[in-house]
Formats: sequence, C-alpha cells, structure tokens
Amino acid sequence: MTPPVFENTCLLPSGFRASGLHVGIKPDANSPDMSLVVSDEPDTVAAGMFTTNRVLAAPVRLDRERLVSEKARAVVTNSGNANACTGPRGEKDAREMARLTGDALGLAEEDVLVCSTGSIGKPLNLDPIRRGIPRLADALAPDGGPAAARAILTTDTRAKMCTTRVSVDGREIVLSGFCKGAGMIEPNMATMLAYVFTDARVTPGALRAALKEAVDGSFNKISIDGDTSTNDTVLMLTNGKAGNRPLEPGHPDWTPFVTAVNGLMFDLAMKIVWDGEGMTKFLELRAAGFASDKQADQALRAIATSFLVKTAWAGTYPAWSRMVDVLGYCGVDIDPEGISIHYDDVPMLSRGIPALPDPERVKAVVEQNRYVVTVDPGLDGPGRAVLYTCDCTEEYVRINMY
Amino acid sequence: MTPPVFENTCLLPSGFRASGLHVGIKPDANSPDMSLVVSDEPDTVAAGMFTTNRVLAAPVRLDRERLVSEKARAVVTNSGNANACTGPRGEKDAREMARLTGDALGLAEEDVLVCSTGSIGKPLNLDPIRRGIPRLADALAPDGGPAAARAILTTDTRAKMCTTRVSVDGREIVLSGFCKGAGMIEPNMATMLAYVFTDARVTPGALRAALKEAVDGSFNKISIDGDTSTNDTVLMLTNGKAGNRPLEPGHPDWTPFVTAVNGLMFDLAMKIVWDGEGMTKFLELRAAGFASDKQADQALRAIATSFLVKTAWAGTYPAWSRMVDVLGYCGVDIDPEGISIHYDDVPMLSRGIPALPDPERVKAVVEQNRYVVTVDPGLDGPGRAVLYTCDCTEEYVRINMY
Repeated sequence: MTPPVFENTCLLPSGFRASGLHVGIKPDANSPDMSLVVSDEPDTVAAGMFTTNRVLAAPVRLDRERLVSEKARAVVTNSGNANACTGPRGEKDAREMARLTGDALGLAEEDVLVCSTGSIGKPLNLDPIRRGIPRLADALAPDGGPAAARAILTTDTRAKMCTTRVSVDGREIVLSGFCKGAGMIEPNMATMLAYVFTDARVTPGALRAALKEAVDGSFNKISIDGDTSTNDTVLMLTNGKAGNRPLEPGHPDWTPFVTAVNGLMFDLAMKIVWDGEGMTKFLELRAAGFASDKQADQALRAIATSFLVKTAWAGTYPAWSRMVDVLGYCGVDIDPEGISIHYDDVPMLSRGIPALPDPERVKAVVEQNRYVVTVDPGLDGPGRAVLYTCDCTEEYVRINMY
Repeated sequence: MTPPVFENTCLLPSGFRASGLHVGIKPDANSPDMSLVVSDEPDTVAAGMFTTNRVLAAPVRLDRERLVSEKARAVVTNSGNANACTGPRGEKDAREMARLTGDALGLAEEDVLVCSTGSIGKPLNLDPIRRGIPRLADALAPDGGPAAARAILTTDTRAKMCTTRVSVDGREIVLSGFCKGAGMIEPNMATMLAYVFTDARVTPGALRAALKEAVDGSFNKISIDGDTSTNDTVLMLTNGKAGNRPLEPGHPDWTPFVTAVNGLMFDLAMKIVWDGEGMTKFLELRAAGFASDKQADQALRAIATSFLVKTAWAGTYPAWSRMVDVLGYCGVDIDPEGISIHYDDVPMLSRGIPALPDPERVKAVVEQNRYVVTVDPGLDGPGRAVLYTCDCTEEYVRINMY
C-alpha cells in the first residue's frame, strides 16, 4: 500500500469555490482579512466542533445553532476582530454577516456559517464587511483555496493548508483544508479556526464521529500558551459530489476515509505548533507509566504551560529539573523518588537519580529545532499521553504586549 | 493608637546573631552565597511551613523532620544551588551542612535547620560550604541581619527585609525577618525562603497558629509565574529573651502580636512581588461576587498565570478581554453575559457589555506601575479573594532562558 500524500496547499474538492480579500478590517491593505468558501451542491452535509470556553463569541453561538440542521453551504470568515465579548450587538453583527453573505450568494442565511478571529472585546465595524461580501462572492473560484487560507490569518506568519486523496467506491475523493493558529492555542481548541472540505458523500452522524475522532487526535493534542479562546471552531463540509455510496461505519472504505481525515487534521495541527507565536523549538512531549491516561495528559498539559519550562526550552537549557517541579505540583500521582525524564534517547533523570549525561550529548539534543521529551512518574502505571508544544521566547512577549 | 511601623531593614531581636558571606558556591565573588542566623537562647521555639510540591528538596525533608521537636537554634542557608532532585546524595549533603554548622557553633546537629535555593537537579559541591561554615560562625554579629538577607538571594535584585515592634506585657518585642523570591513564585509558596525572628516568648502551638495565619495572608496571596518550587520554606524562631509571659490565645497582647506577625510577613511578601523577575507592573487582583471564596481565588490564580494576560499587562494593553477568556476556561461558575471588570475605578466591562471608557482614562490607569483589577462573574455570589501579582516581560524570558 502506498502511504497517503499530504500536499502543502489547499486544492478544493470539486463543487467548492473560495476567495480571500482585503476588505478593510485590518489597517494594512496588504493583509487579506475576509474569506469565503461555498459549496455549489444543495445537499452539503456539515458538522462542527467548538471551544470549551464558557464564554462563547457571537459567531460560535450562531454556528452551533445553525449546525443543528446538519447542513451548510457557505463559510464566511473575517480576521482582525473576533466579535467576542461584544454583547447583544455582537450577536446582531454575526447574524448580519450571515444575511449579507446569503444575499450575495442567493442562499438562505441559515445556510451560512460565520467565523471571526482577532482582537476580542471590540465591536465589529460592519461597513467594510458590508462592502466586502459582494466582492468576495464575485471572486469565488475553484482554485481560491490558498487565497481563503491566507485571509483568515492573524499573527500567523504563514498560511496553513493541506490536501490529500483517498479512494472510496473506486472513486478518488479529495479532502482539503486550512487553518489558523499562532497564539492562544491550547488543547480543547484555542483561538483556532480550521476548515475541511471534501467531495465525499458522508452521512451526518458518521461525519460528526469522524470529525470528533480527528480533532481529538490533532487540535486537542497541541498547546502553545494554554489560553483557550472564545472563538475556536473546526468545521467540516462534505458535498457528496464524488457520488460514492454514503460513507459510514460498515462501508468498506470507511477506515481509509477516517485515516485520511485524521491525517489531514494532524498535519494542519502540527502546522499550528510550528507557527506558534515567537516559537523557535517544536517539542513532542510523551508521558508513560502514569496512573491513567487522564493523569498522563494532565501532567503534559501542566508542563506545556509552565512559564519556567517553556522559557528554558527557548534557551536550550535542559529544563528537566523544572519539569520535576511541575510534576510535583500539578496534582497527578507520582513517586517523588522514582521520576525518569529523557530528552530524545538521552536519560536526564533515572528513577529519581540525576543521570548526569555527557553535556555534549545533551547539547546536541536541545540545539535541534525539534526533539522529544519523555516523562515517567515512576509508578509503572498504564497511563500514556502525547502533546505537541513549543517554547516561549522574548518574541512571544513582544507579540502579545500590545 | 499609633499604626505599626515597618522598617525596611533587618534589625535582629536581642539574642540573635547573623552573618552572610561569599564562600564560593556562586561564581561571582561579589555575590554572597551563604548565610547563618543563630539564637543564643537554649529554649528557642521554632515552627516552619513548607512547599506543597510533592517533590521536596533534601533540606525541606530534613527541616520537616527536625521541627517535630518544636525547637531550633540556627538556620544555615546556601544560595546558588537548591539541592533538589539530587537523590540520596542530596539527603546526605543536607545533613552534612547541619552537622558542620552544629560543630562550628557547639550545637547538636539536630538544632540546625538547613535551607538551599538556586538551580535544581545539580549535586551540591560541599567543598566551599565546608570551608565557609567556620567563617560564617566567626562573622556572626547582632547587626548581621542585612548581610544574611543579601546572602540568600538568587535572581532577586535586592534584599527584602522588615523589622517591626510590638508591646507585650509592657515590654518592647522586636520582630525582624528577611526573604527571597524573584521567579518560581506562586501561591502555596514557591521558590521562596522567608525567616522571621523575635525575642518574644511564644508557646509552640501558638507559634504554629500565628505562622499559618500570617503565611495564608501574605506568601500564599502572591503569584509571579505559577511555578511552585521544591524548596519553599518559611521559618519562625522565637527565643523568649524579652521575658514576657508566654504568648498564646487568651494572653491580652496576643492579638497585637499576631497583627504584627501578619503585617511583617505581608510586607515581605509584597517585596517579593515588587522584585518579580523582569517585572514592571504590580497588580492587585480582586475578585467579588463569585459562588465561593475558593472559586474567587481559583479565578484570580488562573488570571495571574495566563501568558496572554501577563504579557498584555507588560505592554499597557488593557487586557480585560483576555481575562474574560480566562474566566471562561478556568473552571469556575460565571454568567458569560454578566461579567464585570474594572481597572482601578474605570469600568471596562459592565455586566457583559463593553463599557468603552475614555481611552485617556484607561491609559492613565495602565501606565501606572501599580493598579487594581477587579473581576466579578455576574453571579451576585458571596465569594471574594485578593491576589498580588506582576506582569511578564521580555526580561522575564531572558532571565529564565539559561
């Protein structure tokens, strides 16, 4: 079997069109700030997953309401303003964005999903959006994926896109998506938008299940700074244009399809970490030997949000002792005398005893731009977890000071 | 009644002597790295409180064991190496520090408490300590408090000392102390050492009660970066030389004494925040209207450890919307539509509606080096809390990178 190929672009599946433009929300005329993706197929099935934050931005509330129908035809996004913490006016503005988009496309406003990302707490200025939506509709094109991907970015330094293919009922299905991340990223989906489009036909319940599995294995396994946002949204639209028999568990190609969705979302999630605000190091954290998977995950999340650990990673200081400190306060079961920590394959602490490895070996590991840190609490338990994160640099502080 | 006076120095009570020297643990010969405080009174009553981290540095384990006797005569401290995560060797080294100090002073090693602060995970080099302890003993002097206070510092930029007086049984009692902090500070006592000495006579049980009350109101109400350490220690030694009737609840001067202890420790704790690593702003966080005091405290601690909030404070960006975000994910009960936030007396968010205050008024608040942020979750609950914290700057990252 040939391994799946993940292309670093957004080649939209047949029946989808997209566009991205600068409409005037961001001050810089070279920064696109609005995108639109449309499915031309009436029976497009949609599913979404949203932030676990109790404070929900207006567009998130709107999309949750809309997706009860399991249908959607368009996704309109603005960047530069998250329309969050904006009270009743924010609610009205999100609905108005949907209505204007529906009008421009000849669709019911109920068919339009709305996303916003950027600063929170500022009312949206609808004027540029009102002028921009008809322009976005005019600019829609089958090859508009990359333009749309660029227009949802905020402090991201590059577009994050992925396209893959899988065979279903002997037909080639295309899956393609894009996302944004940068800061305020933590497990449970933080200021993050991700969209995946496919021409496969999938039943609504199976789509929800595939989406959940893929998000759990990708966007919920990354952490930039531990701040979940009010706007996190992952949307998946399937227009069925490929004409396959509806995919669901039991279909002979269900597993390859799910594998492709998982792979695509994992690729997008890793691109978010690699573009973390100010990041210089990619860390793969692994936990093994904990009392439970839940405790293993809890320990890794505490390590990934420790100021001291994250700053040490930035400086190539082997921060293993600061991680012992975190294991001691993060509330999971440990044997304080039995902890082991590895950097790649170099032991730093072995069952509570400093391993004092050759400093040159340690240097070779921590000077890489990507390495693996493994922690074991000395309990010989069955609990395992993995988490992808990055360092915290002076540049991160500069980006977030204003 | 005249208000209590808190002097910004360490004037040891009668019967105490102290010293501080560079013995060679830190590379810089101008950085003192070892201190000693001794009580000349045989019946010196002692109490301690220690980190809640499950990983305990060797000296913490030793002191906890020693303080079962409720007695101690000397406190020896080294800075530059925390003797934490050092396995059985660390245990042996801490005991050796106590033994050497006892030998130099003509005391049993059981009378000596040991503290260490600095890097964790590196074995202690005992050679400079072995040579230094007799020199420290020779240098002991009644006016040695400030020298001792300087010798326990790590990344602190200045010594943190306080002296106050209170009348007990018509006699003037002196209370004097010093501490260190800087980074790795969070509620529940993080890499922090604090010592308080008094010539009052206090019963052991009453001393423990006074210490606990004072720590809860001071060192447990501050947060620098949310990383608790393996070494946090607060010690209080009372030598009874003033000759008062033993203080305990019921003694007519018990309340003024407790007030003095509380005030002294609060003063020391605030000095730790004002010297937080890289800090440029002191923040007093107040929570009101939460479901319980515990939830109010939990909310403030989450705000005080958010990378996004702390970096925004550094940049004078009014980060109220990021605090709403934290309230939404930190696990406390809120009314998402009912949150209020004030900066000093300026409303930023009023029951869920952005208050859009005059930007000049906001600027005047956030450009101060100290202001108050008040959060209310809109529940009209009885829960209140206060927490003292600071911003997170590029300098903080630089300090902790290596």
